[in-house]
Amino acid sequence: MQSMRRATHKMLNFFFYPKTIAIIGATANPKKFGNAVTINILTNKNLASKLFLVSHNTVEILGIKCYNSLLDINNEIDLAIILVPKKAVSQVIDDCIIKKVKGIIIVTSGFGEIDEEGKKAEIIIAEKCKKANIRVMGPNCVGIQNTQIGLNASFIQMPNPGNISMISQSGSIGCALFYALDRINLGISKFANIGNAVEISFNEILDYFNNDATTKIIALYLESLKEGITFLNLMKKVTLNKPVIVLKGGRTSKGMKAASSHTGSVATNYRIMKTAIHQSNALLCESMEDFITAIKTLSLLPLPKGKNIGVLTNSGGSAVLFSDNAEGYGLTLASFSDELQKKIKPYLIPLVKMVNPLDMIASAAKEQYFQVTKAMLDDPDIDIVVAGCVIPPFLEMKRDEHYKGVIKAWNETGRKKPVIPMFLFSQSFEDLNYYANKEQAPIFFTPKEAAFAIKILIEQVKTQEEMKNLV
Amino acid sequence: MQSMRRATHKMLNFFFYPKTIAIIGATANPKKFGNAVTINILTNKNLASKLFLVSHNTVEILGIKCYNSLLDINNEIDLAIILVPKKAVSQVIDDCIIKKVKGIIIVTSGFGEIDEEGKKAEIIIAEKCKKANIRVMGPNCVGIQNTQIGLNASFIQMPNPGNISMISQSGSIGCALFYALDRINLGISKFANIGNAVEISFNEILDYFNNDATTKIIALYLESLKEGITFLNLMKKVTLNKPVIVLKGGRTSKGMKAASSHTGSVATNYRIMKTAIHQSNALLCESMEDFITAIKTLSLLPLPKGKNIGVLTNSGGSAVLFSDNAEGYGLTLASFSDELQKKIKPYLIPLVKMVNPLDMIASAAKEQYFQVTKAMLDDPDIDIVVAGCVIPPFLEMKRDEHYKGVIKAWNETGRKKPVIPMFLFSQSFEDLNYYANKEQAPIFFTPKEAAFAIKILIEQVKTQEEMKNLV
Repeated sequence: MQSMRRATHKMLNFFFYPKTIAIIGATANPKKFGNAVTINILTNKNLASKLFLVSHNTVEILGIKCYNSLLDINNEIDLAIILVPKKAVSQVIDDCIIKKVKGIIIVTSGFGEIDEEGKKAEIIIAEKCKKANIRVMGPNCVGIQNTQIGLNASFIQMPNPGNISMISQSGSIGCALFYALDRINLGISKFANIGNAVEISFNEILDYFNNDATTKIIALYLESLKEGITFLNLMKKVTLNKPVIVLKGGRTSKGMKAASSHTGSVATNYRIMKTAIHQSNALLCESMEDFITAIKTLSLLPLPKGKNIGVLTNSGGSAVLFSDNAEGYGLTLASFSDELQKKIKPYLIPLVKMVNPLDMIASAAKEQYFQVTKAMLDDPDIDIVVAGCVIPPFLEMKRDEHYKGVIKAWNETGRKKPVIPMFLFSQSFEDLNYYANKEQAPIFFTPKEAAFAIKILIEQVKTQEEMKNLV
Repeated sequence: MQSMRRATHKMLNFFFYPKTIAIIGATANPKKFGNAVTINILTNKNLASKLFLVSHNTVEILGIKCYNSLLDINNEIDLAIILVPKKAVSQVIDDCIIKKVKGIIIVTSGFGEIDEEGKKAEIIIAEKCKKANIRVMGPNCVGIQNTQIGLNASFIQMPNPGNISMISQSGSIGCALFYALDRINLGISKFANIGNAVEISFNEILDYFNNDATTKIIALYLESLKEGITFLNLMKKVTLNKPVIVLKGGRTSKGMKAASSHTGSVATNYRIMKTAIHQSNALLCESMEDFITAIKTLSLLPLPKGKNIGVLTNSGGSAVLFSDNAEGYGLTLASFSDELQKKIKPYLIPLVKMVNPLDMIASAAKEQYFQVTKAMLDDPDIDIVVAGCVIPPFLEMKRDEHYKGVIKAWNETGRKKPVIPMFLFSQSFEDLNYYANKEQAPIFFTPKEAAFAIKILIEQVKTQEEMKNLV
């Protein structure tokens, strides 16, 4: 088993760290996916992999020589990416077998996701390749990415480099999530969309990411699973090692029907899966919004030592809405100790009531945010600090001063406790978001998002505690 | 009763359409709220109201002459805005009574929201003014706005002009909502934050907005209600006239506790209120996100004639996630008729399955979006069209072409049916959002948001049907 796994990892390395790549179905026509993948691979100047293009009756594409057939290439090929029309795929596979390539990605669609004939065709391909000891990803997939080496073996955009690895059973959902992550400056280590997964399975990639040193967080968009038990056993192991965040498409009968039309496979019963995912200690999200929030939270915040939340704000209404959401998620507001009250009182105007949430009223500025956040972070009875704010459009306050006060306090206390800056609808304040990105600090934009972030932190703490009990 | 109401409206006109305004507590110090309100009123060059500044020992502020006392002004004063410290308010009120001003806004805080003494003080003010036939807003409030005449009698930013009127029991939540509305280019007609509402009540403002011709939609942020029965009877009447969207803070015991600390009043039991609001046919939202989506939806989309949804997309995953949310809200996906299938088939590649949601696959571009959206809008079996998209980063597609195809179809069919453009995480595509704003067309950014928008449309249709039965 151990040696098998090592063998698998070695084989998957040919995909994520290929020395040589051949694109079969490369084209100069910008309206074809064969062009998109070629351009995507060429765009990353740091990529050390050697690229070979295979295209019938073409002398060169973008100044790169084209081969008429894979068999005309003299070098060994680690990774063959197939983009030819469906009817030509079988012949290309035969060439790959003769050429003894190590791995194949079949981007071409029209197989098992379409009809029974397509299912048969993809199984024949898988079996042929298995015999020849060649691993196959796809068909009907977007491809893979490894930002660590500048490899974009897909037709979607390359995300920023980072430490999240993602498997998405929908290429377009992957693409959309990249747009969302890009806005909050979070990056990806490795990405895979493996389509019909006729040979290399979702589980294998998950295991590979689990063993990948540059992957700190694993994010999964799931619609259906072929090997559910294997998946759940694997998930139990992976979550001991790194956080796994799951978004499940096909939670309802309508969604499952759409999923079955999408990938050609039967979607998994959500109720059963939900229980199982919870048992595996993965973090299950029910919307794209929550999924992004969970990734942001675990990427940018340390885990809390306990559950007691201290809230400060300049907006009474935001304290009310946060409290509603906190109760919705079963969160706990701390009681302010006499020591804490004494410490923060000098910075507050007399109208401020010494209760949690602490409404410092509209006149609170950078200094109040800094001092009170710091006092709460230093307080042994508070484990998590929520710094709420509606950015004041008055009193000549700077748009980013409150946030800077919060982050200053966080930095001065060594970022040991999680701080949740809850800055309502502040997405359009570019200076603020730029500063947050530079500081690698999060911003949460609504009370609901802030409360969900804390729920995620607390769930992840529970997982780590269970881990300790296992050791 | 009728004449009383007319009288009330006449009195409230002195607030929203004042001929003359006095700011008592104006100051040149930019760190004071008295300066913020002065600047806000002066900034709007179109405001025809005459402004008088009252400030002790000050000759002029920003080139405007200052009066030592309200009583030194020769003109009649429609609206007096009080920003002096709490201890000076009582004297200013006496001056207002002598001066026979028509209306007073007391911005100053430190009254009923703080303690019993403050409660007594504000009641004395209210009774004094009632005797003198002067209406009073506040104390402890942000103020009011009327974009129709360029009046910003508050210390927060002026929103864009529009046809939504808003009452917010939290000034800062109002401010945050303006940030959110601004990002989607929606504007406000009138805004009021009336703080402790010691004299002019929430209900009176609601009634005033109901009778205001420039108000098409009413949006309310509520924490607590003093006259619940009156409110609900009024709401039943208002919803017959225009849509009312409600966000309730203090839905939980934690939230109610925070609300009581915020406004000094006992928050209303949410379970009872929820039922009552539903009975009044107002649209109740449970988060700031939903509140903004509801406002956007009713501002920019016509109501559907029925409930059948047709979905097209270039992203199978988005179809799955939308379907999940549709089922969550009890929405209905239409069956595609033979006629529709025949009509759209020529525009689609053979791989596309003729099912709803229609996954046109990644290669679908402007022409496909235009033709298929138009065919669905023309189809008698479809009442609502969801045009889903993950903006493709490949095949040289323009970032806004899919959206333009959708809007072209919507425009050519006379915008009779609602179209829900569901463009996942497309907030950062400036061209797209600029075009949407220019066309006064919405964009929904996630499957959850798109499904919630449809839920709102269908709820509003139900209200209108009930209205017809009443007539």
